[in-house]
Amino acid sequence: MPISFDSESFDVRVTREDLTRFMQQALAAAGADQASGHAVSRALVTASRMGTDSHGLRLLPHYLKALEGGRVNATPSMRFDQRLAATGFLDADNGLGHLAGYTAMEHAIEMAQKTGLGAVAVGHSSHFGAAGCYALAAAEHGYIGMAFCNSDPFVKLHDGAGAFHGTNPIAFAAPVAGELPYLLDMATSSIPWNRVQQFGAIGRELPGQVAARADGQTSTDPKAVASLLPLGGSDFGFKGAGLGGMVEILSSALSGMQHGFRLLPMNGPDMATPRGVGHFFLALHPDAFAQEGSFARGLEAYLADLRRQPATPGAQVMAPGDREWRCQAERDTRGIPLDSANQSAYAEIATRYRIEALSALA
Amino acid sequence: MPISFDSESFDVRVTREDLTRFMQQALAAAGADQASGHAVSRALVTASRMGTDSHGLRLLPHYLKALEGGRVNATPSMRFDQRLAATGFLDADNGLGHLAGYTAMEHAIEMAQKTGLGAVAVGHSSHFGAAGCYALAAAEHGYIGMAFCNSDPFVKLHDGAGAFHGTNPIAFAAPVAGELPYLLDMATSSIPWNRVQQFGAIGRELPGQVAARADGQTSTDPKAVASLLPLGGSDFGFKGAGLGGMVEILSSALSGMQHGFRLLPMNGPDMATPRGVGHFFLALHPDAFAQEGSFARGLEAYLADLRRQPATPGAQVMAPGDREWRCQAERDTRGIPLDSANQSAYAEIATRYRIEALSALA
Repeated sequence: MPISFDSESFDVRVTREDLTRFMQQALAAAGADQASGHAVSRALVTASRMGTDSHGLRLLPHYLKALEGGRVNATPSMRFDQRLAATGFLDADNGLGHLAGYTAMEHAIEMAQKTGLGAVAVGHSSHFGAAGCYALAAAEHGYIGMAFCNSDPFVKLHDGAGAFHGTNPIAFAAPVAGELPYLLDMATSSIPWNRVQQFGAIGRELPGQVAARADGQTSTDPKAVASLLPLGGSDFGFKGAGLGGMVEILSSALSGMQHGFRLLPMNGPDMATPRGVGHFFLALHPDAFAQEGSFARGLEAYLADLRRQPATPGAQVMAPGDREWRCQAERDTRGIPLDSANQSAYAEIATRYRIEALSALA
Repeated sequence: MPISFDSESFDVRVTREDLTRFMQQALAAAGADQASGHAVSRALVTASRMGTDSHGLRLLPHYLKALEGGRVNATPSMRFDQRLAATGFLDADNGLGHLAGYTAMEHAIEMAQKTGLGAVAVGHSSHFGAAGCYALAAAEHGYIGMAFCNSDPFVKLHDGAGAFHGTNPIAFAAPVAGELPYLLDMATSSIPWNRVQQFGAIGRELPGQVAARADGQTSTDPKAVASLLPLGGSDFGFKGAGLGGMVEILSSALSGMQHGFRLLPMNGPDMATPRGVGHFFLALHPDAFAQEGSFARGLEAYLADLRRQPATPGAQVMAPGDREWRCQAERDTRGIPLDSANQSAYAEIATRYRIEALSALA
């Protein structure tokens, strides 16, 4: 049955096939070519399946707006320039970052197959969703993958007053024999900016060391907050800021793009001017170092020891990715949930582009 | 004049040349070959010059003990096996980690010169001092360098009760035109273990979210503490733990070594059995991505914007490395300080190995 958008249900669920179909039709209706539509739906559905809702289906309306505004090129001609045997540059032609990300990681994997390593800097790109998608793409091919991206400023420097870095994520994935990959995907701030907005909306206090006022002083009042603290908080934020800087240097300096502080804001108001986001991708051949097979054995032994560690009361020790794969199994069975805001947004998209609405699971 | 070890001075200072001379003589007297002695003194003097005192001259007594106990091979035959054009494995033959580190990074740079990237996994190694030394070695050659190392367990998992990961450092350095390199060198815990001991000795409380009792509950009492929390503390330690895991996988799984939880403790009591520490080094050619020279210009622009950010009152915004290079300039002029504990330790070494004592600067 079609979703009833009059209902106040917060747990309407859809299949990933239907969600993929819907996204691809909407993106095509907004002018995106098939490769772009496939890449965006792959990334967003991947994130939504594993429970990374901040980077999943909720972003579709944003990308449609960016396509319509002309900021993002709907039919890019991405050009890969292989510079040396293990490195290259991908000019994303201001297309969707998801296509740039998957394309760049494919080139990195191809180089890593031959030389053991491959790295691609991407320039003239745009928001690519969850960094973990591209690291994961490498792990699914049997490679260790890393992905980095800059963004417009949300995070202050350790001793700084105002926002300077983006939430500059680090993603790392590794293949695990007989299991889904090891997957770390983390912002270099403690919380994402949309948590400030969520907490503000419900009048809830923020944790103690995650955000600051415009003068740089830490605050727990979402209404007073102007920037995020880097991971590590008031005392150890120099570490999170250093990691954010590393991500910035890899993403923008290596790709010849402007650094994040000078990027136009993701959320506009200017939706017409390309932003020039930069990414960086690295693939490593796990059997190109020690003996063939030793990586798989070592990772298996590490994860076995990790998962059998005693936990604090009421908790469970998990490896990065364990929570995500558990969520994915549940959502592959029960469907991917849409909260009421997304139900409305998707209904509006269906109407605007005259495409068949999502079918809610019974 | 020779240092008077009867004095209670906490600020006896020595030149880096004299310190290097002393270290090399002591290591040679303990049986180390010249290459090992040079590598250890280079790494320890580098760390001491830049103020990383936890990983500087204070470690010499430990390495001498490890050589004498037989845990560390004083005359290793390190063998480099290049596996593919950009990757290889260095068997450190249980020698000093500093020689392994510099040797591995040299191979990584050589490969990066040809292919754009180079990575070396190191196995059968030992403690290598500060990870930053090896990243820095790459930056000094004009390459971006990264260095990682595991260690015996000190840091608990986010939901875990006891120590599992080492303080598993991440080091990242990049060449800056006309300046000393950008240099990030950080443990993936908030504080090092020796801070717990220092605070315990003077009866001072720890910060709120940096350490835990044996049951995994956070504690500020140094006497009650059994492990460190990962970076991010009680609420966001899953990020620090994930980074620690990434370092572990790169350092041990890629090198075919046992992971850190199974390593013998650095501080003994067994000083006879090789520990099988693993490292991982990566070098990137900064001009092998976008246009020649764009990396240098981009990094310069980024650092200029960063350093002119408004600071919180009484603070100054700095890039990773800025504090270290300021300290290095001061210590190159005024000398490298030895506290009373190190004065005693170095006097004892001079006596034991019958080498000329350090000369204190007037």
